[in-house]
Amino acid sequence: MIEEKGILFILSGPSGVGKGTVRKALFEQSTDLKYSISMTTREPREGERDGVDYFFKTREEFEKLIGEGQLIEHAEYVGNYYGTPKQYVQQTLDEGKDVFLEIEVQGALKVRENFPEGVFIFLIPPSLEELKDRIVNRGTETEEKVKNRLSAAKEEIEMMDAYDYVVVNDQVDSAVHKVQSIVLSEHCKRERVAHEYKKALEADQS
Amino acid sequence: MIEEKGILFILSGPSGVGKGTVRKALFEQSTDLKYSISMTTREPREGERDGVDYFFKTREEFEKLIGEGQLIEHAEYVGNYYGTPKQYVQQTLDEGKDVFLEIEVQGALKVRENFPEGVFIFLIPPSLEELKDRIVNRGTETEEKVKNRLSAAKEEIEMMDAYDYVVVNDQVDSAVHKVQSIVLSEHCKRERVAHEYKKALEADQS
Repeated sequence: MIEEKGILFILSGPSGVGKGTVRKALFEQSTDLKYSISMTTREPREGERDGVDYFFKTREEFEKLIGEGQLIEHAEYVGNYYGTPKQYVQQTLDEGKDVFLEIEVQGALKVRENFPEGVFIFLIPPSLEELKDRIVNRGTETEEKVKNRLSAAKEEIEMMDAYDYVVVNDQVDSAVHKVQSIVLSEHCKRERVAHEYKKALEADQS
Repeated sequence: MIEEKGILFILSGPSGVGKGTVRKALFEQSTDLKYSISMTTREPREGERDGVDYFFKTREEFEKLIGEGQLIEHAEYVGNYYGTPKQYVQQTLDEGKDVFLEIEVQGALKVRENFPEGVFIFLIPPSLEELKDRIVNRGTETEEKVKNRLSAAKEEIEMMDAYDYVVVNDQVDSAVHKVQSIVLSEHCKRERVAHEYKKALEADQS
């Protein structure tokens, strides 16, 4: 029996772009993707459940896991730890299932160090797309206004460089459809499919 | 005004795999793809229209076009020429529209020489996929039977190497959906999107 590993998909982007909204809409639809639940030390909010929304841990537990190298990445925001448990991701990929992470930009860069073969998707705000169109179409806006937007935009554009795909979050449905297309087309990549066939042929000869 | 070039998609695969069926089903749906009509010297069949099914040319006209380098690729089957006109493809791409070719394997390799940036999709028969599953799952078939299939399969698998994507034609709808996903995800590729933004920013500074 040949097991082909799953693919790790990472959705990231500037804060406030709507990563969580896109992720939730994606998982409301039928999908074979397995969502990797983050770990945190913050208190559960009303309605949040352990193992569904987050894995809730004490500070001591979290720091122990860091020390043992059991997190792919972690960061501290407003006095609380957030991180991605390594075991779930590794085990699910080994079982041949795709894993989906939704994560901050800094965390995504760390995931890339550990999983360079992952598929990294950068979500951008429609404002950035609009800015591009405005420059392209030479609108009537003042030079000054456009310049201020430009310097902010340049930072976001530079962030893209570590990613494989860029999706504009102009409409949630459209962004979800694009992410689904990326998932499907990644499974059709020749390197991956040819590898499966070659393994099958080798297995036959062994 | 910045014009971004369209993407050239090439659907190919072993003869008899059902390329034409997938292409027709794809164009029955709503799509922004522009289909590049082939040129031929064979007689129109009943119901076929010039400029719709093929561009019908005399042998003299066709050979003149070959001599002038106006075909991306051409081949002779059963005494008739078939080829892909260069002008339509080039002009449509320049207008920022995607072009779709459905073509034999030998022709696809020639297109690759002229358009290495094209996206090459290889359609494989379900029998090849079934063969893989059979090897993987170690079915009850005789050694001999599997061996004969294997040598035929190996040739097809080697053909894959010149392609970017591999799509199994197990069900036409499913194959069409995969091709559509490839088209959409190629438009989300970071190199392409980042390039558009950088061009927009440069245009602004000029």
